[in-house]
Amino acid sequence: MRQLTAAGLVESRPGVGTFVRAARPTTPADYGWQTAALGSPLSRAVGLSATQQVAAPDALQLHSGYPARDLLPERLVRAALVRAARTESAVTRAPAAGLPELQAWFASEVAGPVPPSPRDALVIAGSQSGLTSIFRALVGPGQPMVIESPTYWGAVLAARQSGVDLVPVPSGPDGPNPADVERAFATTGARAFYAQPTFANPTGAQWSAETGRAVLDVVRAHGAFLVEDDWAHDLGIDADPQPLVGQDDDGHVIYLRSLTKTVSPSLRVAAVIARGPARDRILADRAAETMYVSGLLQAAALDVVTQPGWRTHLRTMRQQLGARRDLLLRAVRESAPDLHVEHVPAGGLNLWARLPDGTDVDAFVRACQARGLVIAAGTEWFPAEPTGPFVRLNYSGESPERFPEAGRILGDALRH
Amino acid sequence: MRQLTAAGLVESRPGVGTFVRAARPTTPADYGWQTAALGSPLSRAVGLSATQQVAAPDALQLHSGYPARDLLPERLVRAALVRAARTESAVTRAPAAGLPELQAWFASEVAGPVPPSPRDALVIAGSQSGLTSIFRALVGPGQPMVIESPTYWGAVLAARQSGVDLVPVPSGPDGPNPADVERAFATTGARAFYAQPTFANPTGAQWSAETGRAVLDVVRAHGAFLVEDDWAHDLGIDADPQPLVGQDDDGHVIYLRSLTKTVSPSLRVAAVIARGPARDRILADRAAETMYVSGLLQAAALDVVTQPGWRTHLRTMRQQLGARRDLLLRAVRESAPDLHVEHVPAGGLNLWARLPDGTDVDAFVRACQARGLVIAAGTEWFPAEPTGPFVRLNYSGESPERFPEAGRILGDALRH
Repeated sequence: MRQLTAAGLVESRPGVGTFVRAARPTTPADYGWQTAALGSPLSRAVGLSATQQVAAPDALQLHSGYPARDLLPERLVRAALVRAARTESAVTRAPAAGLPELQAWFASEVAGPVPPSPRDALVIAGSQSGLTSIFRALVGPGQPMVIESPTYWGAVLAARQSGVDLVPVPSGPDGPNPADVERAFATTGARAFYAQPTFANPTGAQWSAETGRAVLDVVRAHGAFLVEDDWAHDLGIDADPQPLVGQDDDGHVIYLRSLTKTVSPSLRVAAVIARGPARDRILADRAAETMYVSGLLQAAALDVVTQPGWRTHLRTMRQQLGARRDLLLRAVRESAPDLHVEHVPAGGLNLWARLPDGTDVDAFVRACQARGLVIAAGTEWFPAEPTGPFVRLNYSGESPERFPEAGRILGDALRH
Repeated sequence: MRQLTAAGLVESRPGVGTFVRAARPTTPADYGWQTAALGSPLSRAVGLSATQQVAAPDALQLHSGYPARDLLPERLVRAALVRAARTESAVTRAPAAGLPELQAWFASEVAGPVPPSPRDALVIAGSQSGLTSIFRALVGPGQPMVIESPTYWGAVLAARQSGVDLVPVPSGPDGPNPADVERAFATTGARAFYAQPTFANPTGAQWSAETGRAVLDVVRAHGAFLVEDDWAHDLGIDADPQPLVGQDDDGHVIYLRSLTKTVSPSLRVAAVIARGPARDRILADRAAETMYVSGLLQAAALDVVTQPGWRTHLRTMRQQLGARRDLLLRAVRESAPDLHVEHVPAGGLNLWARLPDGTDVDAFVRACQARGLVIAAGTEWFPAEPTGPFVRLNYSGESPERFPEAGRILGDALRH
């Protein structure tokens, strides 16, 4: 009966009775008038990302951006949620900047000579909302922002939604060439650079220490912000993250860290660390956008990351990600040798693979899909035209026993 | 130890040891360079609303926009959260449009000849994020939007953040004069009207059925949208809500319904109901802004509203709100007769009271605060200059035993 009620089929009024709801009429409505009211969209019409498509249950899935459920600290998460359900946070409003204890935790995670204060860490509901707020608050519509290419499609989407003009610089396995970044700032007058210096999505690239220092110098020299999206902070395999925010002492680095991928996609909790007036600008945007983040989710997230089991979880995840990466890499090299993985990522969730020149990447993706394998075309990761036919393969979502099969399908699709 | 870890004072590495973290240096950082990088803010710098200020624990508080904890269905909420913690939703990603069962519930709540389909109900994390998305997606920067005056400050804030130009029309206890709405559309070419037809915040006004029909006719004639913010749907006292969305069959009404105030401020769950291309435009904005809403919160919210205890809760809340409203009204009339409550609200959480002409409303609010009573100046509820010295008094947040004391402080502050 509760299911029927939830589905809107029956309506139950205690003390009165249960009623079947009226059926929907079948005349189609005419929404043509909305064409004039809505006008053309400001940015190109964006559907959902290929990474978010729902695949058939038996399909092999290497397209999504999330790790498999068995990589998550499920018991910690469920126990933390049950505990949080009993606290004040379940029935009270959280402060706009976040629960002070969680702010303190995010701040304490930044190592370096000048650690941020808890006040500088603003709790947000996932890093996507941080991106849109940062771009709106620090850059603004019609203004230029430097960005790596390829880079996270969600950042490209957030920038487009904020009306920001993207200025792409190429980025390789060691990060961008600082001279390219310098030229981009000098020619456009940009005041911000969005980047993923650690295990970048999609390539897994990690900036060298020299590149980091040089880029930070360029950013400082131009009186600009470096928006450091440390999305894979807890996803290191062969290397450890060394976030640039640790070298920042005067507010040039705006730092993003999310728990969504390592705690649970349902615990939408992340933080922006920003100092000075930039912090206030971002907080004002967040407050206007959403007022505050559910205190229950914040309390549960803090519970998880302060349990002794959290460090154990991170160590286990590291091993599992490494094993998965190597298995998928082997499957690709054995069964689809023409699919070239240029750079073995030292962390993150993905392989970034290049198809032979001239391959139609969309046709290749469709050919894989027809054979039961869902992957994401690389197109979405380029702020401008793609520089080659790439695909992204997530090794963290699908069961590794199926990787050889995935390799065979990739090889088979390449031959046809 | 977990508290010390959370506060960032010590750092614990299992198997290695526990370390006291380095103390922060005391040299102040210089953020002066950010002045040039940030430029002037696009909208006037907005701090937090007066309704969101944190008052001293012993202060009498009539300023906030939320009901007291003892008005909430606390047991239902906690039990629902514990149950949700055990479901799939705790460890999986929710679809961008929301959990299908919750979409169906929101859609089923709309009565009328042409009920919306579950697909038309988009789940969002609280109504504030719905407002910003609707204004961005359907109106856009630099475009006009008609709005009641006074009206909800959060909508004014969301419109400013979206760069929308506000076109205020006066609104009284029966709603706006349809001729004023017609003139506002005709002279500005606006394509949207934001309104709260049921128990408006702050006045408690409820549009008459004739006003609703006439305004809907105006909106249709101008090929425009009515953004119906049904924030007080479950907060009726002497009257029941009759949302205009029930009369909509061709997508002119964009409907907002939130559960935050009647379930729990921590269950940030609301819905936008929109039909036609407008629905897709809003969903694309939400996806770019935040990807999806925590499935755990959605599952818990659905659990609460489909329990038999939910209807009991709504009946109890109605009685309590009525008793509280009458008590505060009596206290004001007895002890502060010069504070004029023009309209006794048939629902909602607030009294909207007018001070004698010429009163400095900010000085009055400060005088109350000095005497231990926190109230909100009416200024924030006006899209333009206030038309008189008003204050908003929330009767749902403070303990009713203290209402006589509040009345005496109001009277005392008025005399000085």
